[in-house]
Amino acid sequence: MKKLSLRTRVLTGAVAAAALSAGTFGAMSANATEPAAAPAVAVQADTANKNLQQSTHLTIDAATEAAQAALDAAEAENQRVTVAVVDRNGNTVVTLRGDGAGPQSYESAERKAFTAAAWNAPTSELAKRLAQAPNLKDIPGTLFLAGGAPVQVKGAPVAGIGVAGAPSGDLDEKFAQAGVAALGK
Amino acid sequence: MKKLSLRTRVLTGAVAAAALSAGTFGAMSANATEPAAAPAVAVQADTANKNLQQSTHLTIDAATEAAQAALDAAEAENQRVTVAVVDRNGNTVVTLRGDGAGPQSYESAERKAFTAAAWNAPTSELAKRLAQAPNLKDIPGTLFLAGGAPVQVKGAPVAGIGVAGAPSGDLDEKFAQAGVAALGK
Amino acid sequence: MKKLSLRTRVLTGAVAAAALSAGTFGAMSANATEPAAAPAVAVQADTANKNLQQSTHLTIDAATEAAQAALDAAEAENQRVTVAVVDRNGNTVVTLRGDGAGPQSYESAERKAFTAAAWNAPTSELAKRLAQAPNLKDIPGTLFLAGGAPVQVKGAPVAGIGVAGAPSGDLDEKFAQAGVAALGK
Amino acid sequence: MKKLSLRTRVLTGAVAAAALSAGTFGAMSANATEPAAAPAVAVQADTANKNLQQSTHLTIDAATEAAQAALDAAEAENQRVTVAVVDRNGNTVVTLRGDGAGPQSYESAERKAFTAAAWNAPTSELAKRLAQAPNLKDIPGTLFLAGGAPVQVKGAPVAGIGVAGAPSGDLDEKFAQAGVAALGK
Amino acid sequence: MKKLSLRTRVLTGAVAAAALSAGTFGAMSANATEPAAAPAVAVQADTANKNLQQSTHLTIDAATEAAQAALDAAEAENQRVTVAVVDRNGNTVVTLRGDGAGPQSYESAERKAFTAAAWNAPTSELAKRLAQAPNLKDIPGTLFLAGGAPVQVKGAPVAGIGVAGAPSGDLDEKFAQAGVAALGK
Amino acid sequence: MKKLSLRTRVLTGAVAAAALSAGTFGAMSANATEPAAAPAVAVQADTANKNLQQSTHLTIDAATEAAQAALDAAEAENQRVTVAVVDRNGNTVVTLRGDGAGPQSYESAERKAFTAAAWNAPTSELAKRLAQAPNLKDIPGTLFLAGGAPVQVKGAPVAGIGVAGAPSGDLDEKFAQAGVAALGK
Amino acid sequence: MKKLSLRTRVLTGAVAAAALSAGTFGAMSANATEPAAAPAVAVQADTANKNLQQSTHLTIDAATEAAQAALDAAEAENQRVTVAVVDRNGNTVVTLRGDGAGPQSYESAERKAFTAAAWNAPTSELAKRLAQAPNLKDIPGTLFLAGGAPVQVKGAPVAGIGVAGAPSGDLDEKFAQAGVAALGK
Amino acid sequence: MKKLSLRTRVLTGAVAAAALSAGTFGAMSANATEPAAAPAVAVQADTANKNLQQSTHLTIDAATEAAQAALDAAEAENQRVTVAVVDRNGNTVVTLRGDGAGPQSYESAERKAFTAAAWNAPTSELAKRLAQAPNLKDIPGTLFLAGGAPVQVKGAPVAGIGVAGAPSGDLDEKFAQAGVAALGK
Repeated sequence: MKKLSLRTRVLTGAVAAAALSAGTFGAMSANATEPAAAPAVAVQADTANKNLQQSTHLTIDAATEAAQAALDAAEAENQRVTVAVVDRNGNTVVTLRGDGAGPQSYESAERKAFTAAAWNAPTSELAKRLAQAPNLKDIPGTLFLAGGAPVQVKGAPVAGIGVAGAPSGDLDEKFAQAGVAALGK
Repeated sequence: MKKLSLRTRVLTGAVAAAALSAGTFGAMSANATEPAAAPAVAVQADTANKNLQQSTHLTIDAATEAAQAALDAAEAENQRVTVAVVDRNGNTVVTLRGDGAGPQSYESAERKAFTAAAWNAPTSELAKRLAQAPNLKDIPGTLFLAGGAPVQVKGAPVAGIGVAGAPSGDLDEKFAQAGVAALGK
Repeated sequence: MKKLSLRTRVLTGAVAAAALSAGTFGAMSANATEPAAAPAVAVQADTANKNLQQSTHLTIDAATEAAQAALDAAEAENQRVTVAVVDRNGNTVVTLRGDGAGPQSYESAERKAFTAAAWNAPTSELAKRLAQAPNLKDIPGTLFLAGGAPVQVKGAPVAGIGVAGAPSGDLDEKFAQAGVAALGK
Repeated sequence: MKKLSLRTRVLTGAVAAAALSAGTFGAMSANATEPAAAPAVAVQADTANKNLQQSTHLTIDAATEAAQAALDAAEAENQRVTVAVVDRNGNTVVTLRGDGAGPQSYESAERKAFTAAAWNAPTSELAKRLAQAPNLKDIPGTLFLAGGAPVQVKGAPVAGIGVAGAPSGDLDEKFAQAGVAALGK
Repeated sequence: MKKLSLRTRVLTGAVAAAALSAGTFGAMSANATEPAAAPAVAVQADTANKNLQQSTHLTIDAATEAAQAALDAAEAENQRVTVAVVDRNGNTVVTLRGDGAGPQSYESAERKAFTAAAWNAPTSELAKRLAQAPNLKDIPGTLFLAGGAPVQVKGAPVAGIGVAGAPSGDLDEKFAQAGVAALGK
Repeated sequence: MKKLSLRTRVLTGAVAAAALSAGTFGAMSANATEPAAAPAVAVQADTANKNLQQSTHLTIDAATEAAQAALDAAEAENQRVTVAVVDRNGNTVVTLRGDGAGPQSYESAERKAFTAAAWNAPTSELAKRLAQAPNLKDIPGTLFLAGGAPVQVKGAPVAGIGVAGAPSGDLDEKFAQAGVAALGK
Repeated sequence: MKKLSLRTRVLTGAVAAAALSAGTFGAMSANATEPAAAPAVAVQADTANKNLQQSTHLTIDAATEAAQAALDAAEAENQRVTVAVVDRNGNTVVTLRGDGAGPQSYESAERKAFTAAAWNAPTSELAKRLAQAPNLKDIPGTLFLAGGAPVQVKGAPVAGIGVAGAPSGDLDEKFAQAGVAALGK
Repeated sequence: MKKLSLRTRVLTGAVAAAALSAGTFGAMSANATEPAAAPAVAVQADTANKNLQQSTHLTIDAATEAAQAALDAAEAENQRVTVAVVDRNGNTVVTLRGDGAGPQSYESAERKAFTAAAWNAPTSELAKRLAQAPNLKDIPGTLFLAGGAPVQVKGAPVAGIGVAGAPSGDLDEKFAQAGVAALGK
């Protein structure tokens, strides 16, 4: 097979690394819930080697801090939940099974986090999109229930936080958003 | 990483161990079917060691007795079912595949029991909640079909009993409730 | 089916709840590595209700603290690992995927923790038992590699901590033991 | 495709139904541990309809009785185990997760029961056969660890009983055999 | 645990073995599509040993003949399908992947056969029942699409035949019924 | 069992091998979206040996070229997607996880490709068929979301191309069709 | 991405379609058991379209005939087995669960057939190769136990036949070879 | 829970981004096969935001080029293989199922690539390490067979290339190394 002449890849939506600074977390960009918007991507070309790209992740310390903040928010309202943080690649980074959380909450939290990271939107918004595309929810690994929130850096998703176990998804998502908010402090 | 100073955890919904006495089983608390109510939790802090908590389970003898009572109730009406008992952590404790029960009944019974224990409500009630939150049923391990009943201690779930195989879910759940009732005798 | 007359269950190996006090963690009992010894069990009969029993778990705060201590120990030696805490029922309670940990480390850590909790012994010891019973390692969910350590309360297992990703299992287990040790402080 | 002229099937190893009487359980036939012996089969042709055959199963009452006898035997020696009964077709009929049994014991008990029913021999014997055919243990669903015992009717397997959780497989198998023995009483 | 005194089990819906004669196949009993009817069961108590019961299966020759008849019926209409026969216990007995059948047809045929055997009704009828109980289709192993037909002996299911791959489920089910009909010849 | 006299199989819908020439790709046949049409099949009898048949596949070079064309089309619109090519037997031949594609896109692309190849129609058309047969989407391995396109040779499917990750399925499918079109050049 | 200029693919090991004639089955080529020999491949380039290739499969009639011959051979020796035929792509084409075959035999037969088709050698030979490459047996879907035989056309594999359930793998493989031999008649 | 004061994380083994330049691929570092060496890690702290880190990946163009080079190398020796590229997080990036590759080769290639990326060493080296730690191979997702090679940037793994299907693992690995080498050109 003939050798590909690798073209220089220009990721037009990419985030400049220097721009990743503290304080950029937590605010959902206005267009995050628009289904037709191409999500910005926390990936950048490596200027020194055309074969490489960089992707952005939370450190484990940051992910743990966010998960604990979400759990604290739930406990402050006497809710028993599990919290999960999933990175942009879909891999689980942190799980915390809260005291007394129901057995369904563990995988539910992971899937909400996965879904929020994959579509870069809160799962409460994503659940509404099913009106137009009901079979989205058949994609493996997803769960279209309120309780997941994306962690964004300048609008691009770097992780998702999922919470499950409270009596309503709205409560779950409130706690997940508390986890996101903790990263901006 | 700095050491966490573990705060004293106060489980406000917890059940005092001394309160777990015979005769408390079987009655569904009035608010069990209210989706927004935070379920009480059969977990208690350990006063002597802040790192530990206790969770409450049926003994295997009690779980077996409940399962057999459910199976007996089904057989008394000439129905062929499988019965499962799942603990609050989602682990199956007892299964009894009744004579002539269909092949779909085994995993169905387990999932009904899991679902009832997870949400602390009969699955017939939970199926109705799908009107508000239809994607609840996509949570792995669940089945939103009548036939599952929670085993409660002072309102908190300690197990779920699931029955499957009868021609209707209502019948299945009647038998599951007979299993719960046997524990109060 | 005739009703069972439930006999009073006497858990001779059970741990009295009052005895669960701070400072009992971390020391492996001398006979923990003897394969023929019946492990003590952190389960106690409920004196007030013959149908119930209590099981002992780490709080999520304690489990998180232990996991963080294990991760800190690894990072102090510049090792990149994942840490998992699994309860005595085999359910994962906490996972922390350390920065730069290899992709194999996540499930590996969970399985080491599961194995240590199930057999109440460090996995380095359990790996040696394969000389007598090589097929033990075919039991689903297990991994017989050094890196798992049980969390014990007066000799009974209440959890397992698993670490994976360091260049040797001995290093992994050293970090897991650091997690156990943190609970006794 | 041309119609097959179905030949009359003569199951030379089949057990005459009339011969299935109480008291035939429990004794391992002398050749049960001979690897090359073709197992007798608890299947009989239906004399009235050449398209049908009958297979023999334990009733759920008998299977439950056997499982309870195995659990009782374990508890009498202060061992904490899970017991499973699997029918000749490999389907689980009864599970009893004993108080305090380790998390690995549930699936382990099922697999031991499956293995004993499949090869019509105690799993302690089957484990020895691996010396000649080591890859037998790679067959899905099996576990070649002592602790499984077949339930036979005139030498043919109708079920398997598996026990797991004791400190040695020999103990597990002793309890499984106690379950088999209960059926002959 | 006290020994159960096993009561004599009377399977009131059971089929007398002597009644299983040629020519009883193929006609759907009138009430087969009534969801509330308790299905008769092809299981009989063993009069000589209270611990045993018999279950009825197709011989492999009969199952193969039925599968081939279904495949022939499809090919006669130039349709490319897979055919599966599943026994009453849910185990697959025969599969035939027809020439040119699509890749989705294999597992689809198995699930249709499983579903028809489990509920003792054609899957075209069962799909209609979802109007009353929509979550039935979440039971693992099932598929509520036309194309499955039960094999009955005096109204009790002994197997299911599933066909998949034709452009409509009605065609698939016509072929499955041709398979059932072949057994009565 | 009596030997079958294998009948000469006439695949009336089969494609003559000589007819498989360059330039036949890319055009959806007019009836491809008619659910009741029996799809032509890219399988041919082997005239020299009645036991054999031939099936047609893309070469890996062609499949790679198509996948790259689909990825190029997506990148030209600044969309981040994964592309998969699945053959007529349902086996994945090529996957390309585009830079920055979401974690849900990988399995989603494979399933769209599988679905398009299985039913020989674009998944946007297949999603519409759910109005008549809603449970089609429960068949394992499928995904009824726009983004899959069949690769046809004279109307018969030889592969499917699936794209996932763009903000709408219509975009995904546009890119998949670009992959199909590349084969005709 | 630049368009690949697809080179003309020359499959030097390919089998000319005209050469696929009756009578070529059944004889293992002499070098089939040599681990280092590159297997010939039953794939041929399509001379009229550089993007396509043809692969050779058994017809379902031939595969069924072979499976039945294997089952007949087993029954002639009073052995109870399951037979599976898997094509060169690893997809199961036919399964026949013989009367009285053990529950382990079904998946075991499929895996033996898969393994024989994948490596183009009897599994008895392949098991010997583990002496040099013991971890071959960890490849998913395989089983390195005697009982599988490849179906070859001029030395290239077009299918595998697997038999399981007899007391020894040698017997299983004898029956599998009888299935292969039936194709040459 | 008290807020963690996130310490500044110093990844002492991290690779400075500026150092990632063309021409650094392909050479195995001398200590790559030393089991006790802590692998360098292609992860760097983000100096501007303590919560973030960057990880390095191949672009899809580079990964595809490497996979094609590996496939070309195999075809040049008339070997039929599947090639997979897996990133450092264990996610598959590219698969190419070569013409005529056996069905076992697809998942085998993925696992070899995963294993090489996880341990940052060729799988031929890793297979030797099993002499010291035989149970390494029980870690899910791994395969300890020659044929996998890591892609390194200054000694840190950024991907793995796996090849499977040739008659020996040494050949497979030679082709995988050809894929690695292509990245340095």
